[in-house]
Amino acid sequence: MTTHPNDPSLRSFIDVDAASDFPIQNLPYGMFSTAASPTPRVGVAIGNYVLDLWELEQDSRLDVGPLGLFSAPSLNAFMALGPKVWSKTRARISELLRADHPELRDNRELRARVLVPMADVTMHMPFAVSGYTDFYSSKEHATNVGVMFRGKDNALQPNWLYMPIGYNGRASTVVVSGTKVKRPRGQLKPPSVEVPSFAPCKRLDFELEMGVVVGQSSPMGGMLSEAQAEEMIFGFVLLNDWSARDIQQWEYVPLGPFLAKAFATSISPWVVTREALEPFRLAGPEQEPEPLDYLKQLKAQNYSIELDVSLRPGSANAPTRISRTNFKYMYWSSVQQLMHHASSGCAMNVGDLLGSGTISGPERNQRGSLLEISWNGTEPVELPGGAKRSFLEDGDSLVMRGWCQGNGYRIGFGEVEGTILPAE
Amino acid sequence: MTTHPNDPSLRSFIDVDAASDFPIQNLPYGMFSTAASPTPRVGVAIGNYVLDLWELEQDSRLDVGPLGLFSAPSLNAFMALGPKVWSKTRARISELLRADHPELRDNRELRARVLVPMADVTMHMPFAVSGYTDFYSSKEHATNVGVMFRGKDNALQPNWLYMPIGYNGRASTVVVSGTKVKRPRGQLKPPSVEVPSFAPCKRLDFELEMGVVVGQSSPMGGMLSEAQAEEMIFGFVLLNDWSARDIQQWEYVPLGPFLAKAFATSISPWVVTREALEPFRLAGPEQEPEPLDYLKQLKAQNYSIELDVSLRPGSANAPTRISRTNFKYMYWSSVQQLMHHASSGCAMNVGDLLGSGTISGPERNQRGSLLEISWNGTEPVELPGGAKRSFLEDGDSLVMRGWCQGNGYRIGFGEVEGTILPAE
Repeated sequence: MTTHPNDPSLRSFIDVDAASDFPIQNLPYGMFSTAASPTPRVGVAIGNYVLDLWELEQDSRLDVGPLGLFSAPSLNAFMALGPKVWSKTRARISELLRADHPELRDNRELRARVLVPMADVTMHMPFAVSGYTDFYSSKEHATNVGVMFRGKDNALQPNWLYMPIGYNGRASTVVVSGTKVKRPRGQLKPPSVEVPSFAPCKRLDFELEMGVVVGQSSPMGGMLSEAQAEEMIFGFVLLNDWSARDIQQWEYVPLGPFLAKAFATSISPWVVTREALEPFRLAGPEQEPEPLDYLKQLKAQNYSIELDVSLRPGSANAPTRISRTNFKYMYWSSVQQLMHHASSGCAMNVGDLLGSGTISGPERNQRGSLLEISWNGTEPVELPGGAKRSFLEDGDSLVMRGWCQGNGYRIGFGEVEGTILPAE
Repeated sequence: MTTHPNDPSLRSFIDVDAASDFPIQNLPYGMFSTAASPTPRVGVAIGNYVLDLWELEQDSRLDVGPLGLFSAPSLNAFMALGPKVWSKTRARISELLRADHPELRDNRELRARVLVPMADVTMHMPFAVSGYTDFYSSKEHATNVGVMFRGKDNALQPNWLYMPIGYNGRASTVVVSGTKVKRPRGQLKPPSVEVPSFAPCKRLDFELEMGVVVGQSSPMGGMLSEAQAEEMIFGFVLLNDWSARDIQQWEYVPLGPFLAKAFATSISPWVVTREALEPFRLAGPEQEPEPLDYLKQLKAQNYSIELDVSLRPGSANAPTRISRTNFKYMYWSSVQQLMHHASSGCAMNVGDLLGSGTISGPERNQRGSLLEISWNGTEPVELPGGAKRSFLEDGDSLVMRGWCQGNGYRIGFGEVEGTILPAE
């Protein structure tokens, strides 16, 4: 009974297809509700079902913390209990779902209460976002953008190789997958005109990112070691950092992106735990120059997560893949981002969300934004049926998927989807 | 009994000195505790006393909302009730404190319970900061900084006269007056060296700002009219946007200030209501070019608030005034900042804090930061006893005060103080 929840040989009594995102080795957390029971509560995805932790808690099947932890309005209360509780809870859930464990398997009444078909659930924001920080840590992405706007010789800014560049994003508009995104309006001033106008964004883009969910706090005035930073990470989500390129271009000097990124940021509803990703850990790209001491990491801190972006125009029946890359290319790891974030004495909180920055790979089909894919609009993407895209149009639906490919199973993130509504 | 709470002729049965910040015309809200009753609760400042609203609520003297509103851990629950409730509550508190109203005046037992000497209280963060946004809306400040770093001819960036430039700040380190501020560490790379080092900040500065406390929410995807934006403003605090100039200089291209501002932002503990400031409303500087339609304001949206900054080295007995300016100089008003903030569809929340940006006036003694006062370190401030300051040193205490000067009374903000601790 002491098999580790990550063991690839584990099987659940629930049938899970090899292509499913949610085998027993995954067990991601989310907030769900049903038509019959509309108050959001904590669930865990398993195959095509959601395991209702609040029902299990009431039935005294979980011994985690104060009763009500899983009927709380977000994962924050559970996350606050810390990594030992996260591990213990995951091990217990794994046990309850195992094919060789009779407790739930053979209790038909309990099974009917705690296993909800995924088709019947509505997913909600999994956690309350305390602060949202967005980084810029893919060397390929930063280089692509730099070449486009400053030329090949000055592509990377001088500070880029010394620190994970980041900025504070807007937490109030982080929304869950499926939330429609209204095309933002803002000040536009293309170089060809003298005076800006206030109008709907004409260069609306996505950015393919992963989001780190911080599950522990750290004090104001403190710093974090590599081990401390790693232990604070509860899990990861897919993140689409919607961006209005034309608003950004006019507003961002000298204080950075503001309204160009403030109208919406979408995340996937299931938080895949750091523990579930452990078998897919690998070293990131070599860092040269060597990071300063406070940013040094001794462990391999990247993860191999396959990423896939597809676009479906409102008039099309099927989506078209427009990017296929991997999280492993990131130059600065999430742990380095967190160490850097805290290094000036910035307090970190339970529920902080760190966007990785747009994830682009070295190949042309691995670019993580339309800005790069269409090379600033000069090489539009061709879609089936003759449609072309330099940037997003009203009615477009954008879907990002992510998964770690194991031998015969995958640790998946599900998807983050958003459809563009016209400006009013 | 229908005298407006702002009427200058109103008097309280509590003696209030003409130089006090807290006459009956003010009635600012804060969170306080005492040694005997250490749970923070809502209070209102009156002369040298704090009126305990939680005691009044339990005694059925206030009829505002659900019981417990004033024992909540912050002002957010009260603010969420909206401007009609804010006005009604202020009118009732004014009535209770009036010299010609016997209810509290003549009830010695009640007075003893609800009036706490200010000397006995500890003040706490008045509200839970949902999001912190920092603007850059003083033309004099932006011009000073521009002249220093880009020369006279390019002092203002091209976008500055078209919109209130702002960026997202870090909410987790907004702290109440009196909280000590540890000198941050960070990457420093003065132009004279090739490679950055991680070291204590050498150019630590303050920024004199006012903070708007947003008391109502607005939906994602919406916009705000002038009237809507104004009605959402609950009140104002003094704000010190501590800044590490050397960290900022190296990190801020291209995504803006991040860790240089993330280690601490201090605010005054008393939130002065927008209603109390009403008699001190005045028109701001002429705006040329005329703002775009979505930023137009028909009402005078500035306020005359006298501001005063003093510095006391750890070794000195007395503070020295180093700046004396006024909030009225701000080019972009708080209402315009809020209209701009929401304009791309950004949701605003109860508890959002908007920093005005450093407040500098046209005169040399009206500069709102040491960067400007010492002209980037080239003209250090001379303090009594031979001390000089280009930037802040360990042990320095920085105090900001603000007040509206009425005829024979003042609507004061109290102070925001912070003392610099050495880096570890």
